[in-house]
Amino acid sequence: MEGIFTTNNLWMMIATVLVFIMHLGFASLESGLTQSKNTVNILFKNATILPIGLLTYCLWGFNIMYPGEDYAGAFFGFAGFGLDLPEGVAGLAEYADGAYTYWTDFIFQAMFAATAATIVSGAVAERIKLNSFLIFTVIYVGLVYPIVGMWKWGGGFLQTLETPFYDFAGSTLVHSVGGWGALVGVMLLGARLGKYVDGKIRPIPGHSMPLATIGVFLLWFGWYGFNGGSVLSADPGLVSLVFVTTSLAAAAGAIGALFTSLIVIRSNDLTMVLNGILGGLVGITAGADQMGVTDSILIGLIAGALVVLAVVFFDRMKLDDPVGAISVHLVCGIWGTLAVGIFGALASGTQFVSQLIGVAVIGVFCFVSALLIFYVLKVTLGIRVSAEEEVEGLDIGEHKMRAYPDMVEDHTQEKVFS
Amino acid sequence: MEGIFTTNNLWMMIATVLVFIMHLGFASLESGLTQSKNTVNILFKNATILPIGLLTYCLWGFNIMYPGEDYAGAFFGFAGFGLDLPEGVAGLAEYADGAYTYWTDFIFQAMFAATAATIVSGAVAERIKLNSFLIFTVIYVGLVYPIVGMWKWGGGFLQTLETPFYDFAGSTLVHSVGGWGALVGVMLLGARLGKYVDGKIRPIPGHSMPLATIGVFLLWFGWYGFNGGSVLSADPGLVSLVFVTTSLAAAAGAIGALFTSLIVIRSNDLTMVLNGILGGLVGITAGADQMGVTDSILIGLIAGALVVLAVVFFDRMKLDDPVGAISVHLVCGIWGTLAVGIFGALASGTQFVSQLIGVAVIGVFCFVSALLIFYVLKVTLGIRVSAEEEVEGLDIGEHKMRAYPDMVEDHTQEKVFS
Amino acid sequence: MEGIFTTNNLWMMIATVLVFIMHLGFASLESGLTQSKNTVNILFKNATILPIGLLTYCLWGFNIMYPGEDYAGAFFGFAGFGLDLPEGVAGLAEYADGAYTYWTDFIFQAMFAATAATIVSGAVAERIKLNSFLIFTVIYVGLVYPIVGMWKWGGGFLQTLETPFYDFAGSTLVHSVGGWGALVGVMLLGARLGKYVDGKIRPIPGHSMPLATIGVFLLWFGWYGFNGGSVLSADPGLVSLVFVTTSLAAAAGAIGALFTSLIVIRSNDLTMVLNGILGGLVGITAGADQMGVTDSILIGLIAGALVVLAVVFFDRMKLDDPVGAISVHLVCGIWGTLAVGIFGALASGTQFVSQLIGVAVIGVFCFVSALLIFYVLKVTLGIRVSAEEEVEGLDIGEHKMRAYPDMVEDHTQEKVFS
Repeated sequence: MEGIFTTNNLWMMIATVLVFIMHLGFASLESGLTQSKNTVNILFKNATILPIGLLTYCLWGFNIMYPGEDYAGAFFGFAGFGLDLPEGVAGLAEYADGAYTYWTDFIFQAMFAATAATIVSGAVAERIKLNSFLIFTVIYVGLVYPIVGMWKWGGGFLQTLETPFYDFAGSTLVHSVGGWGALVGVMLLGARLGKYVDGKIRPIPGHSMPLATIGVFLLWFGWYGFNGGSVLSADPGLVSLVFVTTSLAAAAGAIGALFTSLIVIRSNDLTMVLNGILGGLVGITAGADQMGVTDSILIGLIAGALVVLAVVFFDRMKLDDPVGAISVHLVCGIWGTLAVGIFGALASGTQFVSQLIGVAVIGVFCFVSALLIFYVLKVTLGIRVSAEEEVEGLDIGEHKMRAYPDMVEDHTQEKVFS
Repeated sequence: MEGIFTTNNLWMMIATVLVFIMHLGFASLESGLTQSKNTVNILFKNATILPIGLLTYCLWGFNIMYPGEDYAGAFFGFAGFGLDLPEGVAGLAEYADGAYTYWTDFIFQAMFAATAATIVSGAVAERIKLNSFLIFTVIYVGLVYPIVGMWKWGGGFLQTLETPFYDFAGSTLVHSVGGWGALVGVMLLGARLGKYVDGKIRPIPGHSMPLATIGVFLLWFGWYGFNGGSVLSADPGLVSLVFVTTSLAAAAGAIGALFTSLIVIRSNDLTMVLNGILGGLVGITAGADQMGVTDSILIGLIAGALVVLAVVFFDRMKLDDPVGAISVHLVCGIWGTLAVGIFGALASGTQFVSQLIGVAVIGVFCFVSALLIFYVLKVTLGIRVSAEEEVEGLDIGEHKMRAYPDMVEDHTQEKVFS
Repeated sequence: MEGIFTTNNLWMMIATVLVFIMHLGFASLESGLTQSKNTVNILFKNATILPIGLLTYCLWGFNIMYPGEDYAGAFFGFAGFGLDLPEGVAGLAEYADGAYTYWTDFIFQAMFAATAATIVSGAVAERIKLNSFLIFTVIYVGLVYPIVGMWKWGGGFLQTLETPFYDFAGSTLVHSVGGWGALVGVMLLGARLGKYVDGKIRPIPGHSMPLATIGVFLLWFGWYGFNGGSVLSADPGLVSLVFVTTSLAAAAGAIGALFTSLIVIRSNDLTMVLNGILGGLVGITAGADQMGVTDSILIGLIAGALVVLAVVFFDRMKLDDPVGAISVHLVCGIWGTLAVGIFGALASGTQFVSQLIGVAVIGVFCFVSALLIFYVLKVTLGIRVSAEEEVEGLDIGEHKMRAYPDMVEDHTQEKVFS
């Protein structure tokens, strides 16, 4: 017992560390896919989102998401502020039937929490005001995320459906939650200056493909903890199955995006392959423990194709998402959640209906919540920087710093477009 | 039993994750040591090699490399397409005597598979056609690698020699296999334009030393999984010994390369120290579980010196390897394999002969196979981009993208050489 | 027994790997916060410090730091050169009561050793002679670090005080040791040219904020091994508590630095937030296993504020530390060590006195030792490069290489200051 408890808990702690490094993955990916005049701003947001997420989750989020039996309702519960110091090490093993300690539970879940806001960060990059974004983060990570999470993982109404909604590691509960926030942000902010001119789409390429690639590999790396840790023990069969399904879906996502982009945009586009990998990972996340080999490859292939199509679609809709976050996290998050009703061990019509219910209810709640927060910020503090600041870059405007002061001479919009 | 099975399997899964991140290491190293006009191309290759490797290994490679008793021959076996879903979780522990599950076995080995092609990628960089390289990858990773691997790790004829050929984690089976492919590619492609002019060697420096350094540290990091995981259990004594021998060989490789480059090229050359670290790592890989402290340091020192000498030698031979892959993976792969017969627990004349046999047989097979694949590609699709494309850079030529669009003005060959 | 031994040892090996990657964190952070004309030099130092640290620790350092009962004195002991090959695998479990093997012990501690010199590296960057720095490293890592370490972790006089000095993972024994060396180096070298002119402080911004950010996230990532591994077993309650305290202190460090820099320097300064994270991590390191949730947040908040104040203070004192290493590692190292007497389970007046004694004695010893080494180097080899070399950059001067040869045209001091 002591041995297996220690091993289970060890895996959950290592999974925590792997999820942690996903935040560096997001920081690298988002700054790589945007212009060098906004790099400090993006890094600053990523360096503060995780601290904000960890602290708000410690202060109240964890106890909203997991209110416990006494407090849990179908839609909202709260077990009080702060964390409870367990009574002695002896009680630690009983906390989760020998799977992990209270501390491990908290810190693993806390690493997930900040992810939702990080997803938003990329989509609204290059024109959002820093202060407004940070306030949005505190509310979205601190309240919206744990409330939605409670509906399923905390024992709420989606868990108590006759055929319970299924979302293994968070295609919907994490990625779509972030994706809806991103969509609303993009809608309220409007496109970057110069992106859609005279009915034409002008690409604004990201400033560093190595950074973007480092970001995607680190995200894939961390996803082994994100999905593998969601087994909530070191169960050899389940965790290793999850490793296989996660790997194959990511690989198939790359190949799906590769061929789709060759057909649709006739180009060996690196960013499409990178986002295809992420799409495959988001897609498998809802059912990573329920799928077989063929299921995983199909889910990944379709996700990879969807990413490319969605990027093209959102651009035609003039929804300007610099990093493709909505395509990756919202579109593939929905796809992966529905796929649980189509492929694998749970596939059935009733499951599909439950998946639809979960996607829809969470979608409406997140959309409305994000709309409310961003709207209030828009009419009070404002959410968009001035046109002058946008042209000059947010690094100077918000931080009086430059990301590469002795490498890049100056940062005018003209330079990029010439 | 359940506890030790879970722990063993846990280590093998973590080792898998560590080997995974080596692919980011290769991507960073190879792009850092080449010009910024070819960066997207290198990243694209690395982002697709791993997916290709994972999928082909899943579809047939794993069953060629480990055909099982029924199918295994001395030279070739095949257990059929796809993976077998194990019958229930109960049977999982029996699969490998409580060391790891079927899924873990597959995914750990799959992460190794793509490495062979990644090694080739660096050597042929800056002038190979993308499509031809990807086709080479599918065949080399999908067929050549698992056939050779079966000869030893799958129970083939090198394993059944009277004194079996020994290659703990793949100095020959992984690194030399890649190295031979790299050598053939470089021979058939020819040198980059402007590299050897009027009998003089003109260095073409890599575009980002931070990227190259990140690459080497990530490779070293991942090597703890590559070598440590090759124990195939979490055995405390063996894995920790492997950690020590691996660390000391890498460290000694750096020092060996440092002093050799001070003597031979009279310079504190960062790329030599970095490649010295990798040389030490490749060198210890064949016998990492058989060596003591002094053995490991000596193997690393010699490997570090060999890297510097080999880089100078291949340059004089006009074999243009932009990243030094042949020196690191082929030369030190051979050195490390032979060192098993010279140092450590297995050292003996008969062992040395077996090591020589393995090196020679695998060398001939890989050389001929790579020659065949590259030759057929050369006379059909062609393997080298046009001179115009090479001067302009493959990023524009193959991908219509640039790696640093708002940081680097333009990419003409002149700029680098001026 | 076998199971728990294997699990404990597994965690210690994984912690080793995590501490390893901190060296990439330091390399990235230090090169990101300095100019691009000195990047190769910094990477070269980081790529050689770890090999030097591993080899000297293997050859004699480990046996100075842990001399064992026969040799241990209150101030110095030595168990002989090299490592002892354990007698058979059977004896492995007895080495540390089933917690880890001899090899694991050595390699975990060896990864710590090189850290001390790496800390110095950043502070003295952009003007120190390479050879003198490497000689300093050999002596400081090879002798000063293990002697000081023995005083506490090897059973020396700080461990045998009536109320023993407490330093869980090395706020003083690792970070302050590095910090004192950094302070002395900066004092003897003097400021970089152009930093303090006509009584004014001219900022010399670092050349790559993405590199700096990657560095800090990798350091945080590795810190889970640094602190978590210092439990010296996989004890579920203790390690997971350490994960929580470490995470919260880092997060609070970011927030503390954020608000302090808004107040003091009226700027959303990314480098302050990054150094605030590191300050929080250094601050919690001495008592990470003794603190509760509120303690950890307070220690981190104060550490984050201290970093900003210290950076401003040292700049006013004209102590030119390009990366803020003295503020992070020395100031917060002292703060964290004293905090053990103020917060958490050990808080008491007598403990505070013991903490003061440890800080003072180690401070004096390290200061004097570093002064002696740097002074002898100054009057013999010299420690500072020529003004011409400093202006041109150490990459050309010491390495005849450039970090970004086809991206950055030339590196004159003027360019940065214009």
